[in-house]
Amino acid sequence: MKQIYSIGVGLIGGSLALDIKKQDPEVVIHGISRKDATLNQALELNIIDKKAVLEDVKHADLVIVSIPVDATVKLLPTILDLIPETALVVDAGSTKLDICKAVENHPKRRNFLAMHPIAGTEFSGPTAAFEGLFIGKTNIVCEVEKTTFKLQEKALKLFTDIGMRIRYMNPEAHDKHIAYMSHLSHISSFMLGKTVIDKEKNERDIFDMAGSGFESTVRLAKSSPEMWTPIFEQNKTNVIETLEEYINNLKHFKELMEQDDFEAVFNEMKNTNHIKDILNGIA
Amino acid sequence: MKQIYSIGVGLIGGSLALDIKKQDPEVVIHGISRKDATLNQALELNIIDKKAVLEDVKHADLVIVSIPVDATVKLLPTILDLIPETALVVDAGSTKLDICKAVENHPKRRNFLAMHPIAGTEFSGPTAAFEGLFIGKTNIVCEVEKTTFKLQEKALKLFTDIGMRIRYMNPEAHDKHIAYMSHLSHISSFMLGKTVIDKEKNERDIFDMAGSGFESTVRLAKSSPEMWTPIFEQNKTNVIETLEEYINNLKHFKELMEQDDFEAVFNEMKNTNHIKDILNGIA
Repeated sequence: MKQIYSIGVGLIGGSLALDIKKQDPEVVIHGISRKDATLNQALELNIIDKKAVLEDVKHADLVIVSIPVDATVKLLPTILDLIPETALVVDAGSTKLDICKAVENHPKRRNFLAMHPIAGTEFSGPTAAFEGLFIGKTNIVCEVEKTTFKLQEKALKLFTDIGMRIRYMNPEAHDKHIAYMSHLSHISSFMLGKTVIDKEKNERDIFDMAGSGFESTVRLAKSSPEMWTPIFEQNKTNVIETLEEYINNLKHFKELMEQDDFEAVFNEMKNTNHIKDILNGIA
Repeated sequence: MKQIYSIGVGLIGGSLALDIKKQDPEVVIHGISRKDATLNQALELNIIDKKAVLEDVKHADLVIVSIPVDATVKLLPTILDLIPETALVVDAGSTKLDICKAVENHPKRRNFLAMHPIAGTEFSGPTAAFEGLFIGKTNIVCEVEKTTFKLQEKALKLFTDIGMRIRYMNPEAHDKHIAYMSHLSHISSFMLGKTVIDKEKNERDIFDMAGSGFESTVRLAKSSPEMWTPIFEQNKTNVIETLEEYINNLKHFKELMEQDDFEAVFNEMKNTNHIKDILNGIA
């Protein structure tokens, strides 16, 4: 797998390119992007070795697709049309069901591996990419049985070599769990930011008080709307369900406060403190 | 101000003690706590020099009160009763209105300075204390005009020496703004944790996916319920108002998704992205 085509050279695609190149300096990373300015930036940052266009994937050993999930759904069949019989195509999208459906009947379905590397920051674009982003992170692989065994093996080696652990899940389960663990966090953060911005017209007050927990809670509200809108659209049913439960929990907390039942308020927090042990298990 | 009595030797009280001692190694830090085990821990960690009891504050030059805000309201009048005429008493509570009211008519009101150092982590107790916590952080001082000028000056020097910038605010404004900037963040985090824990009975799924933004958003859900319950109780009106606005924003977001209006979903996020510039202003 020497000729690698990275469609999307931002935070995820760029960081994957850097890590793969570090593992094997002989690979050639070809960057593909809608925007030439982005490609030039990736080239300057040594994230890619060469600029390429979509048709060039006919020379690929590996194609990595790290673009918004709506673009992935649209582009993936064409990519599979273009690649040679021996090539592997992986995507890094935050939804998996619609993406897997988009190629379920494609004659080259067995050249595709659906995955979701659970890693990232609130930043985007080539400047956000960095070496080592994936060390110790989880890569969720869906419908592994639908990929040629040989290509599965190559992918497994590539992603474990850059430090990831692999977990297998079906696309439905992935989309449901990720709605709780990632999509809801992003919405809660965006709406927290909105609530505060709407209120605090005088930004000096935010400036002075933001140390108090706000900054980490609102961090994800810096994320790219271009990336997140299609994720919420594709995972609509699950995300709405998580939002309903979250809103109900907030309403219940507010009602307890209105009823002056601060013993119950205490217990709500005490029971959730349990999150400590769960998250400690991660480290 | 050589004889310093620290009532509460946890994250805030302990860190203040460490920083003050570092600035002036000749001060003697006397620790006071309800729990002897906590005091012993603070002694072992060199946070305090000596153990003391409440009555000992009659020998104090400075008393720092860093305990839950309900305890502060109860204890503050007694502390002022006990101290010598020249001593300064400061508190570090996350609410300011009830605390200021508790001593508004006290004969030694002018020995008290109400403050809120905007700093902290999700951890608590003496083991959570560390040197340098307050560097570059804001210390909000309320009703400064009610404190003797000489003691104001001493406090100002002490807290700027350990790296803080001072901002002045009235207690009503403090409690209103901090509800948005801190209290709401904590509730949003606790309820996010609850929503996920309720759903994800199989904790392995949390384990594998928590990298995706969840961890930072839910960080505050590790916070101490003992500390936060009285804060929410004292700041009930403001906190309920912020919760109402937050819930309405979440409901609106959910409705936009239900109506398939993803252009509006995009704009909701785009408009909140503005938080980047606000928070960049902080760094």
